[in-house]
Amino acid sequence: MFRHQKELQFEIKVERPDPQLARQIQEVLGGQFGEMTVMMQYLFQGFNCRGEEKYKDMLMDIGTEEIGHVEMLCAMISQLLDGASPDDQAKAAKDPATAAIMGGINPQHLLVSGLGGLPTNSNGVPWNGAYIVASGNLLADMRSNLHAESQGRLQVARLYHMTRDEGVRAAFRKMLARDRYHQYQWMAAIEELEQKNGVVVPASFPPEAELESQPEAYKFWNLSEGQESKEGLWATGSAQDGTGDFVYEADPVPLGNIPNPEIPAPTLHHDLDGKKFKNSNEE
Amino acid sequence: MFRHQKELQFEIKVERPDPQLARQIQEVLGGQFGEMTVMMQYLFQGFNCRGEEKYKDMLMDIGTEEIGHVEMLCAMISQLLDGASPDDQAKAAKDPATAAIMGGINPQHLLVSGLGGLPTNSNGVPWNGAYIVASGNLLADMRSNLHAESQGRLQVARLYHMTRDEGVRAAFRKMLARDRYHQYQWMAAIEELEQKNGVVVPASFPPEAELESQPEAYKFWNLSEGQESKEGLWATGSAQDGTGDFVYEADPVPLGNIPNPEIPAPTLHHDLDGKKFKNSNEE
Amino acid sequence: MFRHQKELQFEIKVERPDPQLARQIQEVLGGQFGEMTVMMQYLFQGFNCRGEEKYKDMLMDIGTEEIGHVEMLCAMISQLLDGASPDDQAKAAKDPATAAIMGGINPQHLLVSGLGGLPTNSNGVPWNGAYIVASGNLLADMRSNLHAESQGRLQVARLYHMTRDEGVRAAFRKMLARDRYHQYQWMAAIEELEQKNGVVVPASFPPEAELESQPEAYKFWNLSEGQESKEGLWATGSAQDGTGDFVYEADPVPLGNIPNPEIPAPTLHHDLDGKKFKNSNEE
Amino acid sequence: MFRHQKELQFEIKVERPDPQLARQIQEVLGGQFGEMTVMMQYLFQGFNCRGEEKYKDMLMDIGTEEIGHVEMLCAMISQLLDGASPDDQAKAAKDPATAAIMGGINPQHLLVSGLGGLPTNSNGVPWNGAYIVASGNLLADMRSNLHAESQGRLQVARLYHMTRDEGVRAAFRKMLARDRYHQYQWMAAIEELEQKNGVVVPASFPPEAELESQPEAYKFWNLSEGQESKEGLWATGSAQDGTGDFVYEADPVPLGNIPNPEIPAPTLHHDLDGKKFKNSNEE
Amino acid sequence: MFRHQKELQFEIKVERPDPQLARQIQEVLGGQFGEMTVMMQYLFQGFNCRGEEKYKDMLMDIGTEEIGHVEMLCAMISQLLDGASPDDQAKAAKDPATAAIMGGINPQHLLVSGLGGLPTNSNGVPWNGAYIVASGNLLADMRSNLHAESQGRLQVARLYHMTRDEGVRAAFRKMLARDRYHQYQWMAAIEELEQKNGVVVPASFPPEAELESQPEAYKFWNLSEGQESKEGLWATGSAQDGTGDFVYEADPVPLGNIPNPEIPAPTLHHDLDGKKFKNSNEE
Amino acid sequence: MFRHQKELQFEIKVERPDPQLARQIQEVLGGQFGEMTVMMQYLFQGFNCRGEEKYKDMLMDIGTEEIGHVEMLCAMISQLLDGASPDDQAKAAKDPATAAIMGGINPQHLLVSGLGGLPTNSNGVPWNGAYIVASGNLLADMRSNLHAESQGRLQVARLYHMTRDEGVRAAFRKMLARDRYHQYQWMAAIEELEQKNGVVVPASFPPEAELESQPEAYKFWNLSEGQESKEGLWATGSAQDGTGDFVYEADPVPLGNIPNPEIPAPTLHHDLDGKKFKNSNEE
Repeated sequence: MFRHQKELQFEIKVERPDPQLARQIQEVLGGQFGEMTVMMQYLFQGFNCRGEEKYKDMLMDIGTEEIGHVEMLCAMISQLLDGASPDDQAKAAKDPATAAIMGGINPQHLLVSGLGGLPTNSNGVPWNGAYIVASGNLLADMRSNLHAESQGRLQVARLYHMTRDEGVRAAFRKMLARDRYHQYQWMAAIEELEQKNGVVVPASFPPEAELESQPEAYKFWNLSEGQESKEGLWATGSAQDGTGDFVYEADPVPLGNIPNPEIPAPTLHHDLDGKKFKNSNEE
Repeated sequence: MFRHQKELQFEIKVERPDPQLARQIQEVLGGQFGEMTVMMQYLFQGFNCRGEEKYKDMLMDIGTEEIGHVEMLCAMISQLLDGASPDDQAKAAKDPATAAIMGGINPQHLLVSGLGGLPTNSNGVPWNGAYIVASGNLLADMRSNLHAESQGRLQVARLYHMTRDEGVRAAFRKMLARDRYHQYQWMAAIEELEQKNGVVVPASFPPEAELESQPEAYKFWNLSEGQESKEGLWATGSAQDGTGDFVYEADPVPLGNIPNPEIPAPTLHHDLDGKKFKNSNEE
Repeated sequence: MFRHQKELQFEIKVERPDPQLARQIQEVLGGQFGEMTVMMQYLFQGFNCRGEEKYKDMLMDIGTEEIGHVEMLCAMISQLLDGASPDDQAKAAKDPATAAIMGGINPQHLLVSGLGGLPTNSNGVPWNGAYIVASGNLLADMRSNLHAESQGRLQVARLYHMTRDEGVRAAFRKMLARDRYHQYQWMAAIEELEQKNGVVVPASFPPEAELESQPEAYKFWNLSEGQESKEGLWATGSAQDGTGDFVYEADPVPLGNIPNPEIPAPTLHHDLDGKKFKNSNEE
Repeated sequence: MFRHQKELQFEIKVERPDPQLARQIQEVLGGQFGEMTVMMQYLFQGFNCRGEEKYKDMLMDIGTEEIGHVEMLCAMISQLLDGASPDDQAKAAKDPATAAIMGGINPQHLLVSGLGGLPTNSNGVPWNGAYIVASGNLLADMRSNLHAESQGRLQVARLYHMTRDEGVRAAFRKMLARDRYHQYQWMAAIEELEQKNGVVVPASFPPEAELESQPEAYKFWNLSEGQESKEGLWATGSAQDGTGDFVYEADPVPLGNIPNPEIPAPTLHHDLDGKKFKNSNEE
Repeated sequence: MFRHQKELQFEIKVERPDPQLARQIQEVLGGQFGEMTVMMQYLFQGFNCRGEEKYKDMLMDIGTEEIGHVEMLCAMISQLLDGASPDDQAKAAKDPATAAIMGGINPQHLLVSGLGGLPTNSNGVPWNGAYIVASGNLLADMRSNLHAESQGRLQVARLYHMTRDEGVRAAFRKMLARDRYHQYQWMAAIEELEQKNGVVVPASFPPEAELESQPEAYKFWNLSEGQESKEGLWATGSAQDGTGDFVYEADPVPLGNIPNPEIPAPTLHHDLDGKKFKNSNEE
Repeated sequence: MFRHQKELQFEIKVERPDPQLARQIQEVLGGQFGEMTVMMQYLFQGFNCRGEEKYKDMLMDIGTEEIGHVEMLCAMISQLLDGASPDDQAKAAKDPATAAIMGGINPQHLLVSGLGGLPTNSNGVPWNGAYIVASGNLLADMRSNLHAESQGRLQVARLYHMTRDEGVRAAFRKMLARDRYHQYQWMAAIEELEQKNGVVVPASFPPEAELESQPEAYKFWNLSEGQESKEGLWATGSAQDGTGDFVYEADPVPLGNIPNPEIPAPTLHHDLDGKKFKNSNEE
């Protein structure tokens, strides 16, 4: 069960409205790596967690924090939209400067949300459940979390340069610092889990079942012309858990067959030679 | 520019058709972490790569390999569907055993693709471009790649137990071994990049800009009842790059204001008190 | 079966082209509450209606009218796009005023539809079937219809202020008046149905089955700090059909258990302690 | 800012696993009118609320409660999936009874979530942001809320009959009673708002601007053959706020023109007669 | 403007209910090539048609007919669902034969539509506006129409074999005959347009502008191993309008450069060497 | 299996950056008829092809070529974005000319892809698998291919006029010439298949089964007022394969019944008269 406090987690106070910036910021609210994504991702991971109370509690702590981040971004977007009105668009017909601004806004901020944040990205595409992952395997999921925080912090860093508004920038600096900590945090969890289970996900599939395939599996297939890719640890090193060495296959050849699927039943109507459907045969 | 060879990268030969399994396998063809995703993700990362020939070449090598994996899964699905026909459905009306099988198939394998693989997941939801990420920041993207291979291998491991068909299992063992290597590979690339740029993405945003926020930012906010989350390195350790120590905030309080957005223009028609739109005022 | 007459239901005659406005108007053509939504919603409700000829006929009357509204909006958008051409975009490179206009248009109006209306909203997101509802329960559906007409009229009212074009405004005034009537109309139908079946949807689930839960169910849980919410009829009044009184629970406590799901089978590969998948055990 | 307590709001304890039912229940978790929808809808309405503290607090109270309902449904789905494993699918090949069950499950409950709830509906379609509405106009939005609770309670009532599990039924009875209260609650809020502003949304658009259209606007157009629709208050009554009477137009005729859009510029390549693009004319 | 008659265009009378078949038939109601697609496609093409009254009228004739086909399929699906109820699912727990049937139904036919047709395909994916095309170029669009009718008739032919219900089959035979005619019809229109404008879309782009590229453009690039593709008119014939001959390029080599994009600005945070963002430089 | 060469198929060299044009060009990269669509469509058709080696090889040749076209468009978009940076947006606040440009860009080109191509259309809607078709019936699919190349070439022709950049135009002229050839090519394949199997898809459904319906089926139903549609071969000619003549039905009447679906079970809670759910009856 959840409770709400009226105060925001951090102060949000923009210097002045900027509806174009409001549109851009939608990316980190309702985009692929926005706050809605991390909120729902951590909550679903927490709700579905089986058998690891420590991780479950941690996921619930952070997931609950992220609901508040969605709240903060809605507050920021509302402030950036303060004072905007449909009349601005009507004025744009006569004034190129207004037209330039109105051209870059999200029309749904006027028409649909009435100056509020939307559950969509910077192009107006609705947030959807396929953005998130909660697989039940903790290491797999925490790698997803580290990656989501990396993409999210990258986008905030880019947004930071899109404005000179010191209020917005101060809030972004706090978010950048917080996302920095979140990256550390998932790295710490990943390190713990890798030490316990090994570095490969999932750990519980028996390596011996793959043994037959290992020599081929550990080859780097050079399928793009040029051998610049040879100069990496992926091509010359060893498995991080010592299960084998990597080999650079400069001229790989396919190991499989040429597929040759069967001619389908005539009732599928592929219209291939001699495969006419005959009504009398059917029953 | 690309070229195609008719042979598959690895042999695909199932023992017998199984249309229910064909449906399940769609998840690793056209689902969130299926082969279409890694194929498009690595190709877009490679196409868009700026200034790092070694990584670009590596991405193109693997992205090109993954096109062939889409091809292999289509071949496997076609074999599992061999012999299926619309008539089976008609027979189901009389035969519960047939009905049980037909209930679990994807009807589009008959109606839409005529026994071929579909660009959809195991529930028939179409693959879409929002599954992939190619941000331009190599470390962020390789963390995404490691995570995608972790989820993908997990799903194949689960699929492995859904069948006793030794042909399918042999192919899955090869895929599991290959996905194992791919995890090593992205880990190797991540290690290289972290050594060069540091562990936080992005590296180029100046840490001093976040300094003011650091003490707050490095606190773990215990927002879910219970303190099991205290027992982790995320709550008690230090930043992996030595920029500070973490603090467990057992009773966190909000630091921000209560949001209080402005009353909007009457032409937005929120119908709040005293804010009637007046036609005569408008122009 | 349907028939078509060439004349539009109402006159559409805009004063002058305005491609930015054409983009905005897409919201009320192909958005969540656009004419495509009410058209498809009323038609599906009518097609699927069981056992109530009076309502079925009414739904078909209005659903059929709404097809004509989609037609009218396409006509309006076409007129607003008249004369636009790809060359305008090329000129924008040299002329900021043109650039300002072109920045705010929907590029698909040039590239995809060739100056016609699109089945998308103002951000170009395609209309989709999940916008509509036709549940078979008339009261539930008519509440949906009232709500859709409320949102739709609100959006047209906002659009009204985005232009000074008297042709567009005249058409919008007609739509506003018509949407006013449609709200009355659904209110009338709702009133009839509530008088017959009661105000709760669905009516046919026996209230006695819920009796055990009623005391808890009628409490307002104050889960957000502050008690401003106490000042409403929802917290202090009684059920509209006299089934009980509401109670304001100022300090609610959870009534349930802490969830504790089982450790899953090892073949799900959650990698939890001591749950290794063992090949030999499987068969 | 939000906080979380470990206990569920209400007790969830199913009698026995039932993976088919788990799939069906996804509809009221992640479907169009599931708990994710009401949770996000009320939170966004609350976050974006301008100028009405009483309503904002009420929305935050209920929105916060609904986060806990998502949590409860995830707990219920997890219990219904307890003990399910990929091996069941493998056994289905030999056993029609197992096949019958496996045919009706959601394969993603095994492959993707590892026995947890998914942010999708009963057919696996991901939840998306276009399900929700938060327009800024309170009356419009509360009508949406009433409608959502009506559809949601209807679906739970239907689900109730899909099982004989007394644990599930007990939880559903609580949900039905709670959704009953929620309908009362939104009705109470609607009544308050209608008394203040009138029954038409939005109230602030001046009725006099629509006067010219009123006589036509208040006619019921009989566009579907048959006059059963005449027997309703929508066709024979008066506007609820006394602004006029309704008229049944038995044989309506169109009032508008036949649309006749202009021939487009040749650079749009419609290939109409005599409209060849000529390279030399372009610049 | 449109009108509706209560009778269906053709008789729909199924012999007996079959909820699994109802699910399959959703493909030709709300799938990629279902009746909703052709209905909306022809209507939008008609609404947006500029300058060709004959074609516009023809599109409106057929588009209007297709609204009635959506109606017919909803009637058929309703009949196939007659008598189904949530209780069937509850019984499935005890009875494998019922379980087999229930496993293959669409749960939304019970939960969401209450035994009515849904605006979704056979897997429950909502119909969406991106299925349709209305480009303004008549030849391009009529090719789309021919293709849609081809896919649609193919799917109905496959569905025909999924049932032995003579009522359903009789309706399908009528639809197959009608779709046959529709293919003839679009072929006739295509022939007319090709004779007037030539066979290449669009016709109005001047061929001389492409002349420089023609020799390369008319080569068949053999990019997949093996030369079976040489045996087709596409590789050995001539352009249908006599503009040149085709050449089979057995060993094609790329004609372009190796892409080498610029290093981006440091404020994009790609973290490439020596490209640190420096705060002091920014303003 | 696939291989990659570093050189592009054709030279891509734009004269100067133009981020607005980069946004427009996304339509032919990731839109409904962009290069991603033809690439995935031809590859899936080739992967799934059964029993026709000549066509399979041809599809693989062209599908493989199209992967390279996606690569070329990514290269073009990257060049058009060269030098763009988040700072431009910050400058827009002070400079209307910059604002005009920034208003028309895709913000995800800065925030999400870091100046690379995106798997989305010109409005930022992600590419999805429902754009493509691979049905197994060669004639149906090649009609789809011809139509896709027609729409695609039309869009490139329109884009051509959106710029005066000679580098972009030179590349477009090559694409236009290539798409011209591709139209010839699919026409050649269609002609071959029609000569073998007849012009109606599918060919293998026996025409005699439709005979009863033929007289009605071959009538053109004049359902839109006016008889301009009479002047076409579709209304006055004969079937292309001589199976009958077309008849213009000027005043069509419906041939079917009025649908009258059954009252549903009370457990569906439609709340119709006298259909109360009674708990005691249920078991």
